[in-house]
Amino acid sequence: MLVIGELINGMYKAVGEAIAGRDKKVIQKIAKDEVSAGAGMLDVNTGPYEKNPKDAMKWLVEAIQEVTDVPLAFDSTKPYAIEAGLKLAKKKAMINSTNSEDEKLDILVPMAKKYHASLIGLTMGKSGVPRDKNQRLEHAVKIVTKCQEAGLDISDLYLDPIVLPLNVAQAQGAQVLESIREFKFLCDPSPKTVVGLSNVSQGTRERPLINRIFLVMAITNGLSAAIMDPLDRGLMDAAITAELALNKNIYCDSFLSAYRKK
Amino acid sequence: MLVIGELINGMYKAVGEAIAGRDKKVIQKIAKDEVSAGAGMLDVNTGPYEKNPKDAMKWLVEAIQEVTDVPLAFDSTKPYAIEAGLKLAKKKAMINSTNSEDEKLDILVPMAKKYHASLIGLTMGKSGVPRDKNQRLEHAVKIVTKCQEAGLDISDLYLDPIVLPLNVAQAQGAQVLESIREFKFLCDPSPKTVVGLSNVSQGTRERPLINRIFLVMAITNGLSAAIMDPLDRGLMDAAITAELALNKNIYCDSFLSAYRKK
Repeated sequence: MLVIGELINGMYKAVGEAIAGRDKKVIQKIAKDEVSAGAGMLDVNTGPYEKNPKDAMKWLVEAIQEVTDVPLAFDSTKPYAIEAGLKLAKKKAMINSTNSEDEKLDILVPMAKKYHASLIGLTMGKSGVPRDKNQRLEHAVKIVTKCQEAGLDISDLYLDPIVLPLNVAQAQGAQVLESIREFKFLCDPSPKTVVGLSNVSQGTRERPLINRIFLVMAITNGLSAAIMDPLDRGLMDAAITAELALNKNIYCDSFLSAYRKK
Repeated sequence: MLVIGELINGMYKAVGEAIAGRDKKVIQKIAKDEVSAGAGMLDVNTGPYEKNPKDAMKWLVEAIQEVTDVPLAFDSTKPYAIEAGLKLAKKKAMINSTNSEDEKLDILVPMAKKYHASLIGLTMGKSGVPRDKNQRLEHAVKIVTKCQEAGLDISDLYLDPIVLPLNVAQAQGAQVLESIREFKFLCDPSPKTVVGLSNVSQGTRERPLINRIFLVMAITNGLSAAIMDPLDRGLMDAAITAELALNKNIYCDSFLSAYRKK
């Protein structure tokens, strides 16, 4: 499973201040820490209050790429900020994200194709978050169809079933888990799947435990990628062990440190 | 998921000595500890070296039933020792276990029916442990058929896909997980499923972690019951949280202690 580090996000106070003050060291330390903890990709988000997300994105990408060569996911509601990242990316990048609305798809699917990027497709539209797995599937079908029409390789599409907090939408947990399993059967080759993990525990009192358990359940159902905190050691241990049980890495007594050294 | 406490087993030194010396207090303390930690059933095993397993089983059952009224699983290779337990059981009990061999099935299936007990069916025969999920399914079909012929309620059958240690049979982990999912489709009503959990981590260096993760993966696939150590708090927390994510208990901030108080 691809671990996409979530920590470079202007929403976090220290990161937001580092972006505002153009303080490279703060960002570069987070990037290096995420990668050495096991992240295979880094999400880059300028944060919700950035006045000039295009310039901020460019600065972030340059700062990060000075210290690591893992691929980046450009995370913004503004397509021009995403494109600013794509233009600078040294590795195959990811667009985070489109939803199932035409106005988003018509811009971001061609952009993914043009820059040979992967694309996260949130299985939701203007009407808000999906209520069950059938609604998720409807959005998924629309996104897959648009990608196929545009000639985007479906194995570059990461469908996101929209994880909701267990404390306010408890029944959605099972719906998300089943969606992860069912999305694989939409077409061949299958679309991939991704979750924004931390949302599952938002507002709960047992955040690390809930994150850990839900991630293992999603991996059991074939999850391809998770946007998560790679510095949460218990969470990474859980992911590594779940993949071991699925025979994706070879067992050795020190399988946890062996994975991290890869 | 039904937690079957595994600790009353003569294989453990302190338990073996307590059985040999007929020291009720030791056994009763373990029984009470397992129940208060969340076990819904207690496995009772006189151990491999007991000379008179029938007498030992009777003594154990009487000792345990003095302090708790949770149902018991009688765990022995000797049908007469199991029957000694069944005769004394105050609650609907469980037979642990038959395999797919006729000589076992012909004794234990009628015994389950006679005593209205549940029955664990190991999906293996004389040829040893199954090599993949297809072999597991073959044994499962044979066991289910025998139970149906004998008129045993299939919802009283717990199929055990045979968990093997990840360090020696790593590929079997995924086969076991898929079997748990697939056994449900054998007939309607479905047979239940059970695992002897601790075996998955036998001989590994990260036993608690591997047990915890594998249990969550099995619960994700619909596991009905696990023979496990309920005193492993991290393991119980993992199971409770996985069931929460599947919407089987209602969320509250203190869902871990709420479950234990049930």
